[in-house]
Amino acid sequence: MITLASDFGSPYPAAMKGVLLQRTNTRLVDITHDLPRQDVRSAAFWLRETLPYFPPATHLVVVDPGVGTDRSALVLQAGDHTLVGPDNGVLYPPARRLAGTEPIEAYVIDEQQLDAPTASTAAGRSGSGSNTFHGRDVFAPAAAAVHDATTPADLAILARAETTVDLRLPTPTVEGDRVHGAVLVVDDFGNVITNVAGSYLDGRETIVVNGDPVPVGATFAAVETGAQVAIVGSHGFVELDVNHGRGDEAFGLTAGDSVVFEPAESTE
Amino acid sequence: MITLASDFGSPYPAAMKGVLLQRTNTRLVDITHDLPRQDVRSAAFWLRETLPYFPPATHLVVVDPGVGTDRSALVLQAGDHTLVGPDNGVLYPPARRLAGTEPIEAYVIDEQQLDAPTASTAAGRSGSGSNTFHGRDVFAPAAAAVHDATTPADLAILARAETTVDLRLPTPTVEGDRVHGAVLVVDDFGNVITNVAGSYLDGRETIVVNGDPVPVGATFAAVETGAQVAIVGSHGFVELDVNHGRGDEAFGLTAGDSVVFEPAESTE
Amino acid sequence: MITLASDFGSPYPAAMKGVLLQRTNTRLVDITHDLPRQDVRSAAFWLRETLPYFPPATHLVVVDPGVGTDRSALVLQAGDHTLVGPDNGVLYPPARRLAGTEPIEAYVIDEQQLDAPTASTAAGRSGSGSNTFHGRDVFAPAAAAVHDATTPADLAILARAETTVDLRLPTPTVEGDRVHGAVLVVDDFGNVITNVAGSYLDGRETIVVNGDPVPVGATFAAVETGAQVAIVGSHGFVELDVNHGRGDEAFGLTAGDSVVFEPAESTE
Repeated sequence: MITLASDFGSPYPAAMKGVLLQRTNTRLVDITHDLPRQDVRSAAFWLRETLPYFPPATHLVVVDPGVGTDRSALVLQAGDHTLVGPDNGVLYPPARRLAGTEPIEAYVIDEQQLDAPTASTAAGRSGSGSNTFHGRDVFAPAAAAVHDATTPADLAILARAETTVDLRLPTPTVEGDRVHGAVLVVDDFGNVITNVAGSYLDGRETIVVNGDPVPVGATFAAVETGAQVAIVGSHGFVELDVNHGRGDEAFGLTAGDSVVFEPAESTE
Repeated sequence: MITLASDFGSPYPAAMKGVLLQRTNTRLVDITHDLPRQDVRSAAFWLRETLPYFPPATHLVVVDPGVGTDRSALVLQAGDHTLVGPDNGVLYPPARRLAGTEPIEAYVIDEQQLDAPTASTAAGRSGSGSNTFHGRDVFAPAAAAVHDATTPADLAILARAETTVDLRLPTPTVEGDRVHGAVLVVDDFGNVITNVAGSYLDGRETIVVNGDPVPVGATFAAVETGAQVAIVGSHGFVELDVNHGRGDEAFGLTAGDSVVFEPAESTE
Repeated sequence: MITLASDFGSPYPAAMKGVLLQRTNTRLVDITHDLPRQDVRSAAFWLRETLPYFPPATHLVVVDPGVGTDRSALVLQAGDHTLVGPDNGVLYPPARRLAGTEPIEAYVIDEQQLDAPTASTAAGRSGSGSNTFHGRDVFAPAAAAVHDATTPADLAILARAETTVDLRLPTPTVEGDRVHGAVLVVDDFGNVITNVAGSYLDGRETIVVNGDPVPVGATFAAVETGAQVAIVGSHGFVELDVNHGRGDEAFGLTAGDSVVFEPAESTE
């Protein structure tokens, strides 16, 4: 199984699928091609929270603002899963989750040794690959090769990586019963997903969010339509939502913003 | 075969696919994940008009504004098809179409007995499921179990439902040669799809729609670019369209609105 | 393998998939259903640049502003690939690329002989097909039949086409070291894709685009964030882009517009 995730929208993902299907007969599964554009951190979050639900697979990830520069192309072996994508950190948060207690092995793709795809055209394009579409010309061929190999270490196109770009999503800092956290992402529904563990809400009926009191609920429907609510979201973090509305607009928050949570008592 | 339909947009559907693929090797087919948000009636319409074109399958449907409340999770057996989703009525209009003359059998999913999915993480989440993402934590595991069972009645996770929420899409009322109908949905093209049977247009060159005359055509191209036209749409109902334009804007109509159709003669 | 491409958005493609899966068990691959609406030329470009990356397949293409008129429904045999879609020219640019040096064979689909799909409903619709959704009622059944046939010529539903609508994407005209070209499409990122071969940029550090100088780069990152750049895009043509921004807005260009490229020297 090969999964595909990118910020390409439409129709670029199709060429990646064609290249994969020229080389392998395995199942292809779209994660999404609507990751926030060129936003490595949001992509890392969504993949960290999504890929662990999959059985062992090769995960092709292309969120690549540095395409065409000298950034490397990577393969990470993480437990039973393999990730293929750019060396900008996006692979590491999901790889750590997938690897569990095992070490992550990192390989650099030798683009010169890669069998670059060519469109089946008599007019004939060079086939030497583009500077702007490595999803098609580098990562898809590498993913097909990795998928069909017993282990990445066997592939001539791969060499052990010496240094790679890591990325760690921010973690909150606790100061007594106050927590200084951050908004990791806003989802399509407008739900504001923070990095504060959901257990902060345990036993609380109200919390103070950036100075304003917000009721705590088990789910959106705990409050009236249009009202704000803090819940434990489906990723286990505190989410700031609006029942049948957009939390990002109601709270005035977007990805990367700081949030301070305090117990309701402390404002009395 | 398992089909998936939701109002999730991106990237939440991917976690449902991961959970399914952990449990079954069957073909997955996306119906759409862009159903109108939390709009049970529109979802029921689109599924009623789409699912009957499929071969026998398990249909996973998640349009679920009551997620996290005490609404039940259902399995409906409808002829050779099985539907899995929330007990808010969304499953019934497609189930009636799929069942034909056979009775629909309804089962409640016992969420406590369900083998809840866990992400493969060393950090370890509880695995007890969320309050807000039952597509991943309840409906996908249930759909996988139902798909692999010979019959829903054999599954320990299911119990016969005593009462369930039904939903019936509105039907028009006829008053002589006038019809009082409703807009069921507006599609992505802006076509206004009513609940009035297309046969109303038989032998008519013009009809009066909410007081204004509109030409009847066999297809959009029967009128000039930008002009209004009433046609028999692809679902067999009267549609109010604009050739190469948006009918909803030209007619000032949206889902749920009333429409009155009269013969052109009656206004002379 | 059957690929699907359309401008349908959501949820209409699902009914096409259902019809296909009623008739064949082959792999279905979505190219995209977000082709620019009713824009035959843009669709032809994207398919010409995407389909050649696929292994031999049946390609179902529905961008069909003339649906319901007397335009024919076509099957084109192009090398090892088969294309199915409306007779409005959209199939020819990809077919020529797929056929290479081989001739393209064109067949007309006899809609009367086609086994039209019926939804599995007791209420019973006519099953005679719609005037507005030939993707479901004509092209999908034809694609399934063609896919499972040894050769299109064997199918009773097909007859040799006598005349068909061709479409040729515009090519630039060269006048000394000036090139008069056109914008073929703008992609989702806002990149302006012209029809001028990328080799025009060879050895140039700057070109003049419609009178204004623009730096030439190997990739977006050759210039600062927000700056304009001319690059060789992933299709081998000159693209007018903005690093981490939208080229169409910065250059004021959209699909179909003229572009004149001159060497930077000529303006000194």
